[in-house]
Amino acid sequence: MVNREFTVENDPRILFGKRLAKIRKELGWTQEGLAIESGIARSYLSGIERGKRNIALINIYKLAQTLKIPVKELVDI
Amino acid sequence: MVNREFTVENDPRILFGKRLAKIRKELGWTQEGLAIESGIARSYLSGIERGKRNIALINIYKLAQTLKIPVKELVDI
Repeated sequence: MVNREFTVENDPRILFGKRLAKIRKELGWTQEGLAIESGIARSYLSGIERGKRNIALINIYKLAQTLKIPVKELVDI
Repeated sequence: MVNREFTVENDPRILFGKRLAKIRKELGWTQEGLAIESGIARSYLSGIERGKRNIALINIYKLAQTLKIPVKELVDI
């Protein structure tokens, strides 16, 4: 879905995707490992990291729990 | 939708709803005012605050922007 409300610089999906990919790599997780452990489909996780998905709260929470970080750290966008 | 993964104590929808309602009131917003200003339907906002909705990132972002607080402060759950 095209969303004209945001630019590349301020689109929360893009900001979150970059943030997630950065933290995931820093903590030594592969995309596949994080997908399996969090119960989120690998293809969906890939879309989130590429800023293509409007991730909802429960999945944000699952990712934070799997990464063992506070939700607020993950959404520091 | 019933979600058996969470209890009342750790359901992120309930935690977020309480957090949003607390911050909204502290900052002097009515539910109606916040709905209008953020462009989120009043009934949907009510459902979010009651922990019935799995709010997605773009709406979290819009609420934080309207309340003029960082996203991470709003999702400090």
